[in-house]
Amino acid sequence: METTKIIIAGPRGRMGSEAVKLVERTEHFELVAVIDHKHGGKRLNEVEGVSTLPVPVFANINDCLSEIKADVLIDLTTPEVGMHHTKTALEFGVRPVVGTTGFTNENLAELEELCQQKETGCIIAPNFALGAVLMMKFSQMAGRYFQDVEIIELHHDKKLDAPSGTAVKTAEMIAEVRQEKSQGHPDEKETLPGARGADFSGMHIHSVRLPGLIAHQQVMFGAEGQTLTIRHDSFDRFSFMSGVKLAVDTVMNLNTLVYGLENIIE
Amino acid sequence: METTKIIIAGPRGRMGSEAVKLVERTEHFELVAVIDHKHGGKRLNEVEGVSTLPVPVFANINDCLSEIKADVLIDLTTPEVGMHHTKTALEFGVRPVVGTTGFTNENLAELEELCQQKETGCIIAPNFALGAVLMMKFSQMAGRYFQDVEIIELHHDKKLDAPSGTAVKTAEMIAEVRQEKSQGHPDEKETLPGARGADFSGMHIHSVRLPGLIAHQQVMFGAEGQTLTIRHDSFDRFSFMSGVKLAVDTVMNLNTLVYGLENIIE
Amino acid sequence: METTKIIIAGPRGRMGSEAVKLVERTEHFELVAVIDHKHGGKRLNEVEGVSTLPVPVFANINDCLSEIKADVLIDLTTPEVGMHHTKTALEFGVRPVVGTTGFTNENLAELEELCQQKETGCIIAPNFALGAVLMMKFSQMAGRYFQDVEIIELHHDKKLDAPSGTAVKTAEMIAEVRQEKSQGHPDEKETLPGARGADFSGMHIHSVRLPGLIAHQQVMFGAEGQTLTIRHDSFDRFSFMSGVKLAVDTVMNLNTLVYGLENIIE
Amino acid sequence: METTKIIIAGPRGRMGSEAVKLVERTEHFELVAVIDHKHGGKRLNEVEGVSTLPVPVFANINDCLSEIKADVLIDLTTPEVGMHHTKTALEFGVRPVVGTTGFTNENLAELEELCQQKETGCIIAPNFALGAVLMMKFSQMAGRYFQDVEIIELHHDKKLDAPSGTAVKTAEMIAEVRQEKSQGHPDEKETLPGARGADFSGMHIHSVRLPGLIAHQQVMFGAEGQTLTIRHDSFDRFSFMSGVKLAVDTVMNLNTLVYGLENIIE
Repeated sequence: METTKIIIAGPRGRMGSEAVKLVERTEHFELVAVIDHKHGGKRLNEVEGVSTLPVPVFANINDCLSEIKADVLIDLTTPEVGMHHTKTALEFGVRPVVGTTGFTNENLAELEELCQQKETGCIIAPNFALGAVLMMKFSQMAGRYFQDVEIIELHHDKKLDAPSGTAVKTAEMIAEVRQEKSQGHPDEKETLPGARGADFSGMHIHSVRLPGLIAHQQVMFGAEGQTLTIRHDSFDRFSFMSGVKLAVDTVMNLNTLVYGLENIIE
Repeated sequence: METTKIIIAGPRGRMGSEAVKLVERTEHFELVAVIDHKHGGKRLNEVEGVSTLPVPVFANINDCLSEIKADVLIDLTTPEVGMHHTKTALEFGVRPVVGTTGFTNENLAELEELCQQKETGCIIAPNFALGAVLMMKFSQMAGRYFQDVEIIELHHDKKLDAPSGTAVKTAEMIAEVRQEKSQGHPDEKETLPGARGADFSGMHIHSVRLPGLIAHQQVMFGAEGQTLTIRHDSFDRFSFMSGVKLAVDTVMNLNTLVYGLENIIE
Repeated sequence: METTKIIIAGPRGRMGSEAVKLVERTEHFELVAVIDHKHGGKRLNEVEGVSTLPVPVFANINDCLSEIKADVLIDLTTPEVGMHHTKTALEFGVRPVVGTTGFTNENLAELEELCQQKETGCIIAPNFALGAVLMMKFSQMAGRYFQDVEIIELHHDKKLDAPSGTAVKTAEMIAEVRQEKSQGHPDEKETLPGARGADFSGMHIHSVRLPGLIAHQQVMFGAEGQTLTIRHDSFDRFSFMSGVKLAVDTVMNLNTLVYGLENIIE
Repeated sequence: METTKIIIAGPRGRMGSEAVKLVERTEHFELVAVIDHKHGGKRLNEVEGVSTLPVPVFANINDCLSEIKADVLIDLTTPEVGMHHTKTALEFGVRPVVGTTGFTNENLAELEELCQQKETGCIIAPNFALGAVLMMKFSQMAGRYFQDVEIIELHHDKKLDAPSGTAVKTAEMIAEVRQEKSQGHPDEKETLPGARGADFSGMHIHSVRLPGLIAHQQVMFGAEGQTLTIRHDSFDRFSFMSGVKLAVDTVMNLNTLVYGLENIIE
């Protein structure tokens, strides 16, 4: 596989520092520069606790892209900075991979046009946890064929909201394709209120909270004589790195904008 | 192992006919007679669809026990008939194993005294599903050490009540020993009502209903860095036969009354 | 939904009799005739134990299709008879849905040409268990993104072969797309031989056998900080009926041959 | 609950530092001193990174126990030091809770006698992971009633040995009570060698290794129509702290030696 030259913006952040490690340990990835407004002019090994690689640090993206030849920009900054970075990268013909939930529809429309104009690929992903993305995609696919579905999400007991955002997102994705149905027996009765969980378009969602748990979700489909279960267990934040890697590899063969990791899965 | 001579009362019922098969296929069990008010005087092989064994059928228990020497009476009839059978068997020194949820506290007190007087063992079990009984017993034991517990019970979608009787029974057994606690984050919020399930003494119970499912229950305990899960899957009615076998083997070494299979488990 | 007129060949077989029930209880399906060489000339309600519908029974397909107007033929006979039925149905412009593992590549090639010529759809499926088909398809899709996978299949202890055919088929499908890798630590040691299961192209397969179990399979994918699990539980033979229904609904919109249920899943 | 005054030996170790935190956050526990040969004479808050509590640090146990009145000594040092500490604590009438796998049978016999003589309780535990201990205990209990059992243990792919020590320990404990049986069909065949896992006294053990996994074990029992599953998931080293807490609370009511956490579980 040909080497992909990569710039990382936001290398000191929680996700950014993991991305630096990902690039370091991936054979066909090469870190060629980082963008960090606080440490412009240094080498990365002079910035405490990130990396031992002596790659140049730039305070702004224009300087960086004028000087350094790269294939991909991994941007893990904020929505505002990220929008500016993404546009600039596309202008320079560098493919952006951006992790953000903060882009507006206008932002996305503007980037889509720019991608088309420059014939350059770009991936914007609100969620890089590849396993979670696959769980949601498979659940949606199964929802076409199995009308009966219940979602059980399980989290540590520090979590405030129930159900989780991922559970609701999953239910929404299934609802797009599922023939609506109110599940359970039409005459079913809760002898203890809440037993049957939350109702989302006739599907039921159950939220389990226990110390010891981290972040887990199980989507169960039932039909006569069988059940199909899709489960994702997330144990720590490293879980999103396989998604970043996939996005970098995929963006190299794109010349349009893709929003959401689920849309690059075949 | 010495052979145990067994009489079955109610051999044509759903459980009774399974009990006949159990006795037939267990090497150290021997069926010596059955009690069936409708077919007294016949041989069992003349009663359609139960067995090919030519053991005698008696219309009432007194005739049966006067004529036939037996070790154990397995009674799978109704509470009224069962009470009469149990007392008569004890009078004859035959150990009863009775499957019923219908005995009153007065019934049990009367039988307890009779057992003591006759120094004869007797087992009354509301539930012979050994796996379910173990699940409940283990859950209670774990409840002493883990305060945080959630119960997920899963059944076919023809079931009317939620939560299931077994789930409530399990929660009651845990509540007897568990230091009370309201689980989840004190400030947790249901953005969809019911998500956190039913509340039983601070524990949460979730009822899943799907076609394809049969009868399943999962009891989850959590503590820092770990979870402990106890799960029972019941696929059909044969599941209670291992409990009947255990009760027969155990009653041979008892000379008192035991109520509930959980109390013969070491 | 418009009503689909259906003919069933092989209505007395294990799958055929279930298919009759499926058609009876599906609102937009109508049973218009059956083909049964033994009972030609009768009405279906005169054939013991299949149905109370008085639809005509034909001894051979030519008579049936000459007389009865139908949309779909569900064929659940033998490979030889099935091939003849499928060809004849296509000649008459009736869409076949055929459950068989017995067609040769020559058979399939011949049918493909006939479908094209007649511009008529046809579905041939070796496996109608929709849940199992989805499990395999999702596993293959996930195998593109997760190199590390282990398969656990669990069956009743009457099963002779280990691993199961479905487990091997799943591993084959994953191997088609997965970047090969020998899993586990390179220096791992079995202190008890067999602990790490069977090796298939570097993936490990584990076969669990227990009384009580029916037919279950769990495919687990792992990556840093996360696992993704896809599980199918099959409790009885009715589990294939959702697949038959899907095939009938789908074939109405096809004008080519499709082999394998996985290829009609979007 | 009355406050328990606690001394911790080995407060800078991996387990010791967690024990300090446990005592700090448990309402009825009070840390009164620590033993640390390297920092004798200081206050604990002067030792980097352990605690902000200014409790006295002693270099040796005799000085500590002469000066400080305590109820319990938690010893998390080495077997040699631990043996000396345990004996000295018993001499002073302080109850020891010791985490070690290194005591010999002679050590244990000596301590047992000392406990008896001093009428002082003492708990020695090779494993403080309460959930794992309960899993093993429940598995042994279930093994009396279910002859058919398979063990699936799942770990990260850095693990060298298969099966895990816990899986073998579990199998040994079950084998003590289980009526021996060679599981699976007598004529079963492995079409891929290893599929049926490792054989331990007729039970089968399967070792799954995947990145993303941490340390998990599932013990499955089967009988006609049902399965019973006991599962432990361990996510990190904090998981042993509930066991330490239980041991401290229990030792206060003991006046003999107990070896193994499973023996204080009712």
